[in-house]
Amino acid sequence: MALLENESFDGIGKQIHEFMTNLYPICRSITGNGVRDSLKQIKQYLPNLEIHEVPSGSEVFDWKIPNEWNIKDAFVKNSLGEKVIDFNNSNLHVLNYSTPIHTKLHLDELKKHLFSLEKYPDWIPYKTSYYDQNWGFCLSHNQLINLPEDEYEVSIDSSLESGSLTYGELLLKGETDDEVIFSTYVCHPSMCNDNLSGPTILTYLAKEISKRKTKLSYRFLFLPETIGAITWLSINKNNLNKIKAGLVATCLGDPGNFTYKKSKLGISYIDKITIKLLEDNSSDFKIEEFKPFGSDERQYCSPGINLPIGSLMKTMYYKFPEYHTSADNLEFVTPKSLESSFLMYYKIYETLEDNDYYENLNPMCEPQLGKRGLRNNIGGPKETNNFQESIDWILNMSDGKNSLLDIAIKSNLNFELIKKCADILEKNQLIKKI
Amino acid sequence: MALLENESFDGIGKQIHEFMTNLYPICRSITGNGVRDSLKQIKQYLPNLEIHEVPSGSEVFDWKIPNEWNIKDAFVKNSLGEKVIDFNNSNLHVLNYSTPIHTKLHLDELKKHLFSLEKYPDWIPYKTSYYDQNWGFCLSHNQLINLPEDEYEVSIDSSLESGSLTYGELLLKGETDDEVIFSTYVCHPSMCNDNLSGPTILTYLAKEISKRKTKLSYRFLFLPETIGAITWLSINKNNLNKIKAGLVATCLGDPGNFTYKKSKLGISYIDKITIKLLEDNSSDFKIEEFKPFGSDERQYCSPGINLPIGSLMKTMYYKFPEYHTSADNLEFVTPKSLESSFLMYYKIYETLEDNDYYENLNPMCEPQLGKRGLRNNIGGPKETNNFQESIDWILNMSDGKNSLLDIAIKSNLNFELIKKCADILEKNQLIKKI
Amino acid sequence: MALLENESFDGIGKQIHEFMTNLYPICRSITGNGVRDSLKQIKQYLPNLEIHEVPSGSEVFDWKIPNEWNIKDAFVKNSLGEKVIDFNNSNLHVLNYSTPIHTKLHLDELKKHLFSLEKYPDWIPYKTSYYDQNWGFCLSHNQLINLPEDEYEVSIDSSLESGSLTYGELLLKGETDDEVIFSTYVCHPSMCNDNLSGPTILTYLAKEISKRKTKLSYRFLFLPETIGAITWLSINKNNLNKIKAGLVATCLGDPGNFTYKKSKLGISYIDKITIKLLEDNSSDFKIEEFKPFGSDERQYCSPGINLPIGSLMKTMYYKFPEYHTSADNLEFVTPKSLESSFLMYYKIYETLEDNDYYENLNPMCEPQLGKRGLRNNIGGPKETNNFQESIDWILNMSDGKNSLLDIAIKSNLNFELIKKCADILEKNQLIKKI
Repeated sequence: MALLENESFDGIGKQIHEFMTNLYPICRSITGNGVRDSLKQIKQYLPNLEIHEVPSGSEVFDWKIPNEWNIKDAFVKNSLGEKVIDFNNSNLHVLNYSTPIHTKLHLDELKKHLFSLEKYPDWIPYKTSYYDQNWGFCLSHNQLINLPEDEYEVSIDSSLESGSLTYGELLLKGETDDEVIFSTYVCHPSMCNDNLSGPTILTYLAKEISKRKTKLSYRFLFLPETIGAITWLSINKNNLNKIKAGLVATCLGDPGNFTYKKSKLGISYIDKITIKLLEDNSSDFKIEEFKPFGSDERQYCSPGINLPIGSLMKTMYYKFPEYHTSADNLEFVTPKSLESSFLMYYKIYETLEDNDYYENLNPMCEPQLGKRGLRNNIGGPKETNNFQESIDWILNMSDGKNSLLDIAIKSNLNFELIKKCADILEKNQLIKKI
Repeated sequence: MALLENESFDGIGKQIHEFMTNLYPICRSITGNGVRDSLKQIKQYLPNLEIHEVPSGSEVFDWKIPNEWNIKDAFVKNSLGEKVIDFNNSNLHVLNYSTPIHTKLHLDELKKHLFSLEKYPDWIPYKTSYYDQNWGFCLSHNQLINLPEDEYEVSIDSSLESGSLTYGELLLKGETDDEVIFSTYVCHPSMCNDNLSGPTILTYLAKEISKRKTKLSYRFLFLPETIGAITWLSINKNNLNKIKAGLVATCLGDPGNFTYKKSKLGISYIDKITIKLLEDNSSDFKIEEFKPFGSDERQYCSPGINLPIGSLMKTMYYKFPEYHTSADNLEFVTPKSLESSFLMYYKIYETLEDNDYYENLNPMCEPQLGKRGLRNNIGGPKETNNFQESIDWILNMSDGKNSLLDIAIKSNLNFELIKKCADILEKNQLIKKI
Repeated sequence: MALLENESFDGIGKQIHEFMTNLYPICRSITGNGVRDSLKQIKQYLPNLEIHEVPSGSEVFDWKIPNEWNIKDAFVKNSLGEKVIDFNNSNLHVLNYSTPIHTKLHLDELKKHLFSLEKYPDWIPYKTSYYDQNWGFCLSHNQLINLPEDEYEVSIDSSLESGSLTYGELLLKGETDDEVIFSTYVCHPSMCNDNLSGPTILTYLAKEISKRKTKLSYRFLFLPETIGAITWLSINKNNLNKIKAGLVATCLGDPGNFTYKKSKLGISYIDKITIKLLEDNSSDFKIEEFKPFGSDERQYCSPGINLPIGSLMKTMYYKFPEYHTSADNLEFVTPKSLESSFLMYYKIYETLEDNDYYENLNPMCEPQLGKRGLRNNIGGPKETNNFQESIDWILNMSDGKNSLLDIAIKSNLNFELIKKCADILEKNQLIKKI
């Protein structure tokens, strides 16, 4: 599963960041043209991406698809006719899913519909009101406290009408039906770590995997958060038993270290792989136990669904101050961090492909490695000690019950080295895949 | 299981201490009128308490009920006829179960029957000789070393005759036969932490539980230590499988922190409940592994009995210097400590009653909490974060295999909060008891 | 299993060291007269030792017995005819298994066949080339760098011819066929910790056990490392299921603390026993997880063999600088260390013999210990607290499912004390062996 010929991932972080720059201005929400326009851009990279539309009012488990929300413009003008809040400056200024309104209000009445963040007085907070009809504006706390007494003209040119919920899905069929889910959400307006880092990295990952013949099947989901995952699970509820592993991709562009939030079971296959690869490749990372709050792992790990799906992030949602504010912007996420996240997701894919069970063909005592050129004949190690130790561990543990991943974990050796040595041993007819 | 109407536990520590003050002067032993008089006082609080009498000589497993011991008076007089040791000053002065004697002795002969405690020279030690016929006096070490050479008159007006062993038992029948044992001992003379704290607190606990309709049945045992527990187990040996949990109550009045000594299994139901409640309610406590020495848990956890019974104490026996001395008196135990012990036992009872298994009625994905008023519609938490987290954990884990206690342990949230939220979710028809 | 009458192990370390001194000069290898001469000396202590000869060329699993190697003399002379390297000074000077040679060479050509150790410039390294035909000399680094340009005469008077591989085996039959393996290797030339400490200590251990009637059978193996263990396993492959425990004895004479390398399973019987005895008897020791490199545990724990065999050493191979050099000599190993290693092996043997399952004959509550003189009747402990605690633990845990070893581990009491108390309880008919 190494790189294809003439291929390299150099500069991929910069490419992902450029793609993100294109998606950044779109005003996304859980329904509406923002999602559609974003998926159209993703489809340019993934021509086989299927775009699904689920009509408003459809019942999905305990929920109902809400009316579709779209917005053209919004502002607050003072009595001089000057726009003091302007949707065109930042789509975060509008309470997401605001009902249409056009009226005049005095400051005290207006303030009931204004949201700010006292702790970070320069940042615009991101607020939503999907299921409770309301309207409002978000603005920096400094701007809020400097608004003078006045009569203001308020206008939100939005619509909330029967339409549909939109999501994107791409299945890359492998040799087997065993499926891996990579899920992300596409419903936040102009914010980068949460959430454009997820869809952009998964777009590039899907593009890479689609070039390869794979053992497993890979399904990529680009959904509105919560309601989108619920919708997809509701539609596909009879097909979930094919899913052997999965990850929710989010918060992958900030400069922090990796965080892995375990699946509900806590010891599922994806947990073992991801934690081992973090150990192999990172000097510092965090493991979080499963908790039933966060992103779409809440749905994937609900008691009636209970899929083996974790979430690999950089800094976890809630834990960076820029979370859900205008400061989560194109400067906050870096090409370098996006690249390291892409590479870790790619390595997880590689490991899913490469991890197999082998049987030692000479299980009684050690085979004679020297006569096969696999052991130095006078003292000292041939390559590194790790090479010889890796050979010894694979031979010792390959009884058909331990996968290469199990051997890498037990021996505390790098999975990539174990895989490389297994290939050598297989070539030497000392082990065979089962 | 909250408090009954118009009811409060304010001042209950003071009431328990007053009750203890009444029991304090009685000269108890493993048989005789001291036990009977103590049980009579307990029966004033618990009219349904049954008083059992088991004849001397009865065989109970490997043991035989000993002759009944009673004592009227005891003293040591010097040659001037002055009482230098007087039973009326402290019933600890007499080696418990001393045979009757009336004789004259020189100091060196007398000294073979005197017991003192060099380390704490002002305290009278508590000594017994139940199964080896002997007589003796206990006195402070300072008194012992100041006894002049003299001829002393020794008198112990005791009797050791065929009679019976006495114990008290109260069964509070609940909806089910599943039984919880609260066991304590009533055989120590004037000492408070070990042991009057146990019987006084259990008396008040039984009184409270007797006012309520309960799911489980509760059996309270007031026994002489060791031989009493052996006797009760011998008589009831065919009825032990109803017992689902239990605690030995002792050393509950000193000012130290709680100590929980686990049942033999170490992971039984009572262990899980008690440790969780200590975590919820105490900032500092000790967990002791089961050891086959201590109090009546020795019998309850013997290999042929093996009941799920632990012991919840403040400072463990042996571990406070006043243990088995005259310094374990009414000043050493405090109303405040007795009250906190009573409350912890009460909470254990509450949790035993409240802990149930629920099933999430919308197990596929999350139910929509917002439309039921259980989720804030614009950002931030409705009550506290803990409230929302509690709701999420209950929904996520209620697959019928996790009790509320399991959920509280896994989520690291307070059991009381989990119970309160489960009630709310049940009222909203989101979960149902199974 | 205490010492036999009139017997003591005083001075046994000195005796073992003297035996080692006799074995030290022999030039051993994996085949040849060095092994035969060493086994002859061992047989003087163990008359029933069987000496096996397996012909060169025999197939043993994936290996073939190599030609037999013998050596009479070897030297390097300078142009003045002075011996600058002389096999008679140290048999380490010859690359073990060197092919015969007699030629003249200039220094630069000679150097391709010289091996030294830069890090310890005064020590001669030990090097082998068993399966790759080669010749060479080992010398101190100081000597190497001081060799002047010259023409040297090189002579190795060795032979590499069809013959056999030799190993020694002693079976001490016990009451049952259940077998314990003590395995060591006898293939290193003049080095003491690795490896003469192993064969000398096992010789003394076998001698002691042979004097006794035992419950288990004990098999002692004195083999050439790797190829010898492979040969023995190949010959005995159908008889391995009798083996219940075993140890590889090596590196037992250096002044360091004990190291125990676990069997592959990691929780096998020998692991439990050895770790418990180290805890009972040592203030400081190391536990190493199983790794598939090291000594003959590699073969015993290969996936098709998988025997419960660990390795008890002092300082582990590789971890002392003298390892595989001339500095691993008779001064490096001490009688004191050999004695403590012998005693630990002896205690392991004793525990294997003494560990039994008992049943408490009074499982319902405690038996009355006082009437049997097993409990002090007035307060305080009779002997030590440990004695009483040991009695209590045995009675509490003897339900037929816990061995004395299990009880010693659980109670954190010394196995010897537990065994002593079990004997007392058995004598008192309170427990019986099952």
